[in-house]
Amino acid sequence: MIIMKTGATEEQIARVVNEIMKYGLRADVSRGAFKTVIGLIGDERKIPFSHFEVLPGVKEVLRVEIPYKLVSREYSKYSESMSKHKVIKVKNVRIGGKEPVYIAGPCAVESKEQLFRIAEAVKKAGAHILRGGIFKPRSSVHSFQGLGAVDRKMAEKALKWLREAGEKFEMPVVTETRGEVHVDLVAEYADILQIGARNMYDQDLLTMVARKKKPVLLKRHFGAGIEEFLSFAEYIAAEGNKDIILCERGIVPIGKGRTYTRYTLDLAAVPAMQKETYLPVIVDPSHGTGRRDLIFNMSCAAIAAGACGLMIEVHYDPVEALVDSQQMITPDELKDTIEACQHIYKLAQPKIKVS
Amino acid sequence: MIIMKTGATEEQIARVVNEIMKYGLRADVSRGAFKTVIGLIGDERKIPFSHFEVLPGVKEVLRVEIPYKLVSREYSKYSESMSKHKVIKVKNVRIGGKEPVYIAGPCAVESKEQLFRIAEAVKKAGAHILRGGIFKPRSSVHSFQGLGAVDRKMAEKALKWLREAGEKFEMPVVTETRGEVHVDLVAEYADILQIGARNMYDQDLLTMVARKKKPVLLKRHFGAGIEEFLSFAEYIAAEGNKDIILCERGIVPIGKGRTYTRYTLDLAAVPAMQKETYLPVIVDPSHGTGRRDLIFNMSCAAIAAGACGLMIEVHYDPVEALVDSQQMITPDELKDTIEACQHIYKLAQPKIKVS
Amino acid sequence: MIIMKTGATEEQIARVVNEIMKYGLRADVSRGAFKTVIGLIGDERKIPFSHFEVLPGVKEVLRVEIPYKLVSREYSKYSESMSKHKVIKVKNVRIGGKEPVYIAGPCAVESKEQLFRIAEAVKKAGAHILRGGIFKPRSSVHSFQGLGAVDRKMAEKALKWLREAGEKFEMPVVTETRGEVHVDLVAEYADILQIGARNMYDQDLLTMVARKKKPVLLKRHFGAGIEEFLSFAEYIAAEGNKDIILCERGIVPIGKGRTYTRYTLDLAAVPAMQKETYLPVIVDPSHGTGRRDLIFNMSCAAIAAGACGLMIEVHYDPVEALVDSQQMITPDELKDTIEACQHIYKLAQPKIKVS
Amino acid sequence: MIIMKTGATEEQIARVVNEIMKYGLRADVSRGAFKTVIGLIGDERKIPFSHFEVLPGVKEVLRVEIPYKLVSREYSKYSESMSKHKVIKVKNVRIGGKEPVYIAGPCAVESKEQLFRIAEAVKKAGAHILRGGIFKPRSSVHSFQGLGAVDRKMAEKALKWLREAGEKFEMPVVTETRGEVHVDLVAEYADILQIGARNMYDQDLLTMVARKKKPVLLKRHFGAGIEEFLSFAEYIAAEGNKDIILCERGIVPIGKGRTYTRYTLDLAAVPAMQKETYLPVIVDPSHGTGRRDLIFNMSCAAIAAGACGLMIEVHYDPVEALVDSQQMITPDELKDTIEACQHIYKLAQPKIKVS
Repeated sequence: MIIMKTGATEEQIARVVNEIMKYGLRADVSRGAFKTVIGLIGDERKIPFSHFEVLPGVKEVLRVEIPYKLVSREYSKYSESMSKHKVIKVKNVRIGGKEPVYIAGPCAVESKEQLFRIAEAVKKAGAHILRGGIFKPRSSVHSFQGLGAVDRKMAEKALKWLREAGEKFEMPVVTETRGEVHVDLVAEYADILQIGARNMYDQDLLTMVARKKKPVLLKRHFGAGIEEFLSFAEYIAAEGNKDIILCERGIVPIGKGRTYTRYTLDLAAVPAMQKETYLPVIVDPSHGTGRRDLIFNMSCAAIAAGACGLMIEVHYDPVEALVDSQQMITPDELKDTIEACQHIYKLAQPKIKVS
Repeated sequence: MIIMKTGATEEQIARVVNEIMKYGLRADVSRGAFKTVIGLIGDERKIPFSHFEVLPGVKEVLRVEIPYKLVSREYSKYSESMSKHKVIKVKNVRIGGKEPVYIAGPCAVESKEQLFRIAEAVKKAGAHILRGGIFKPRSSVHSFQGLGAVDRKMAEKALKWLREAGEKFEMPVVTETRGEVHVDLVAEYADILQIGARNMYDQDLLTMVARKKKPVLLKRHFGAGIEEFLSFAEYIAAEGNKDIILCERGIVPIGKGRTYTRYTLDLAAVPAMQKETYLPVIVDPSHGTGRRDLIFNMSCAAIAAGACGLMIEVHYDPVEALVDSQQMITPDELKDTIEACQHIYKLAQPKIKVS
Repeated sequence: MIIMKTGATEEQIARVVNEIMKYGLRADVSRGAFKTVIGLIGDERKIPFSHFEVLPGVKEVLRVEIPYKLVSREYSKYSESMSKHKVIKVKNVRIGGKEPVYIAGPCAVESKEQLFRIAEAVKKAGAHILRGGIFKPRSSVHSFQGLGAVDRKMAEKALKWLREAGEKFEMPVVTETRGEVHVDLVAEYADILQIGARNMYDQDLLTMVARKKKPVLLKRHFGAGIEEFLSFAEYIAAEGNKDIILCERGIVPIGKGRTYTRYTLDLAAVPAMQKETYLPVIVDPSHGTGRRDLIFNMSCAAIAAGACGLMIEVHYDPVEALVDSQQMITPDELKDTIEACQHIYKLAQPKIKVS
Repeated sequence: MIIMKTGATEEQIARVVNEIMKYGLRADVSRGAFKTVIGLIGDERKIPFSHFEVLPGVKEVLRVEIPYKLVSREYSKYSESMSKHKVIKVKNVRIGGKEPVYIAGPCAVESKEQLFRIAEAVKKAGAHILRGGIFKPRSSVHSFQGLGAVDRKMAEKALKWLREAGEKFEMPVVTETRGEVHVDLVAEYADILQIGARNMYDQDLLTMVARKKKPVLLKRHFGAGIEEFLSFAEYIAAEGNKDIILCERGIVPIGKGRTYTRYTLDLAAVPAMQKETYLPVIVDPSHGTGRRDLIFNMSCAAIAAGACGLMIEVHYDPVEALVDSQQMITPDELKDTIEACQHIYKLAQPKIKVS
């Protein structure tokens, strides 16, 4: 991490970047109001730091030992003045801002009628962003894989419905990009590109999605520690895209006997991550618990833990849903949940001290 | 589980109990306002259920397949009308009642002065019950083991301080009973007997503590699933003592790399357990996270998840504490935490539907 | 699963396949010496089984409840006579046959000289198949990503070295295909296509790789249970490619404190999986332990547990290796390991009863 | 750790011990052929090390940072010349010596007839030590708890059978001491005192058992990391009893879906622990897998991993056993297992380099 002097010229910055590239690394240039910070991308061990210290315009050279340098609070401290989170703007919605953000919609888009009906209902219930799965990652090849799996034409049709529903009900839309071959297509229609938990470790997919220059919603893999999660977010940041929304959605359950929840929702990871990174952190209680009857309380708990938002699966008739029917709530339940969360957010937020 | 007819006589009940004992099992007799339910303790496979169905006064014989019969909602449904939780009364405090309960105090009692100073402070901050460790379970024989480890005289002295502090500041007191040889001594002074997480599987200790006929605070072992946790609570209930407070305090972390929290606080277990059992569930965010800077948010999250109370470690000067100094908060921080939790409890509670 | 009568005609088979496709599913036709078995791929709930029972040539219709039907022993039982494992032939090597197979080579291909030197050494030590990473999945964007990451030209150059080394020292070669965009390229040069642990859940990659009609070495993800592992192997089988080698390489460690091994090698999964599937199972003790000093013993243990082979990272000078230097062994150590394993295989194998 | 000079006098040793006690710690004096090493028990931070360096007879003062000092290889290195393991002698059996040791017998002692019949059979099959549970730790109060749970008289009767069977068939006997109140009784009859996995964290029980001055077989808790396991062995060593046999028996399974083994047998922990401690390490494949059909292979694997012995549950008619019938093997299967293990031990042992 190279901190430039206040007033460093563009030539001086360009020279530093040039020198970095000579060593086979890439540079991340972050321009603040007063100073510019340059992050190194690649294996720093190759770099003679002393050489950089004497380049014109360089104020200081700092080694950052953690593997998630570009998304760390350490980095943001120097590069810009961020009160708490990076605020990611998507159309009229601000993620990481003063209000929590609610993402809701069906698990899988099943038909235009189903999508529009749910979209309208979640909008009324208070949701800001519409979700809807078109490419569904599934544990079994014998399960319904989403409309995206039928063929490219059906995939595009479903993506168009999603965009139309978003426009009609004034919500940006998010959907999962599973599979590198679909990235271009999905990026054409979605406002936010989701990387599912199962694909968190897929660095090629992350890199490809990052380059689309749209906000990325990255879900934590259920076997990943926090350090790994942030290190894979770093793959996105390394492409110059720092509009990353982190999503906790549960880790693998441990212990013998019956499991009472589908995963173990790791809510303490929410404030713990917020000490490490400036990226906004949201929670998905639907996959995290897999139980409709726990969504209300775990949504409240997530917001109380300090989450910037929630991602919830909603269906007007949960038992009818083709995927994950046991974890979906109704629009009315969503409304109750959002109402309680709005109150809780005010009570729980002010105390998060990032020191 | 044998459900007696309304108006079954004492003789009829006694006969059923007698028959049960003939088969080498024990009976748990639960008398409600209208009917009496008799639970079986032991291996039910030995019992010819058809034989019981025809005994006078017997209305119905039900098999309960889960290993935690006596503490299950199923059992309470027949035995008494409990709206939500069993309310456990300890002096003037009601655990599982309409208000959340806050248990606070030092991790370890270090001196009379330290204990009284903290007791006064936590009372002022809003705590209802005073905690203070005298027999400390530790992972290393080379660590401070609590005043109880010095000798029996010192142990008793510390227990007396605890009781005096409780009386002076009008709070019932809870302390851990580690080791069967200390049970009698601890039971003489404490209002609530705590079984630490490391001892959750110690069925002999559980049985011995249960027989003291005082409320028992049972912590979940960090390697235990919910089914196991409730099955060990059953050991206490099997002694006729159903004044059991369940405490979630984190499970073993998984994943590679640095762990950012000491344990993984499993908050979804709180509402999940409350669907299974009528016993009140509280949360210990101090051990659950091991991080002072996360206590406020994780306390709020625990209450939002539906916990009936919290158990928090407090010290006027955290860095000075002999044990777990990095996870203790100050009395002022406790006050803020309780205030926020009181509001959140009202918002999050009404939606827990036990169906 | 539809079992055809002995002597069912091609027309009868074609009709069954046709009917299956009418319901939106795909068919897997497995022709044995005496009978033909047809597996269904897709959501079986849509199928009226009774309808199939009466089609000409159909002997029996069986429902298989497990999500890994096509790779299950159940399926192989009907489709062909396999004594123990499916034997996968790659050039002169038989995986799953009467002798264990040793796959060895550098973690990452670093240069032609390094690769050839190691290839020659592992061949002499007794290895049958040469491994060498060109596209390296890494937890940090700041780590060396393999020569494949430099550019396409470098990637192809390295792949050519690998093939040349394989030809020169008469070993088939295996390398990881990370990223869908590289599949065609890698498939051109490698004899066996490896899916790394991090990509096990990447169903699009699996499908794409499966279609190359080359044997696939699928590593178990470190957060995956056995059922999930086999269910993802099913994605490969669903493309008609059943030349799948399963590789156990450790699951996420649990527990507090220092971790003494990088992952927890789950050796009991080896015989447990071999009861479920006819696919050969190998073990990678290098990643599983992450410790050079444990490779010998854990290799012996893997073979004793019933593994059909091992995958081991070797370097003539472990400390010099650019990736995972702490887990590499020398060619001499490989020789000792293979020698011991050859003896152990004979002792441990005969007792595996697949009943 | 204080290393005395060669030829230090008894007075000099006594003075060092005395000084240690002044600081509220205890001393562990380990006399080797040439030199004496004194270990500190308790919180070392209280000790002014420089003060000890100048005491007469003191050669060197070393700080050991790990929490398992007294059982560490570091400690043994100075105190005695142990080639590989501490050899624990029990009657005519040597644990940790040149031959692996096989402990076998019924899970639970059910009757004299059952015990004697199994004892005779396991002796013939090659077992060295007889096991038999009398106090059974169980997850459910509704399960059979062992004959020890009936009453004290029955417990003593069963213990006498165990001793008689041991004498008749010339095998030392091991049985679990569950519950502090039973320690005296069990210690009267058993040659080796077992601490079950569930009680590993019960430091009071460990201390009490250690004082019986008989060898202790300590099982690893299924939620414990290696550091914790060794730290609890340290509680036994701190009482001056270093005849400790460590037993790996599986850790909690992780992951979604069906679990194919009862626990995850962590075989890499065997050689990993043997680098850390001089204590012999054995493996219990019966509880570790919970599956009869995996015992042969996982026994072979445990020995191949470097275990000094095995502990296996045997019954002449597994399905009839009252406890854990699905994991018991027959005497014939035991014989086959021991035979294979004897060969494997020779192949796998020589390569363990403790460096």
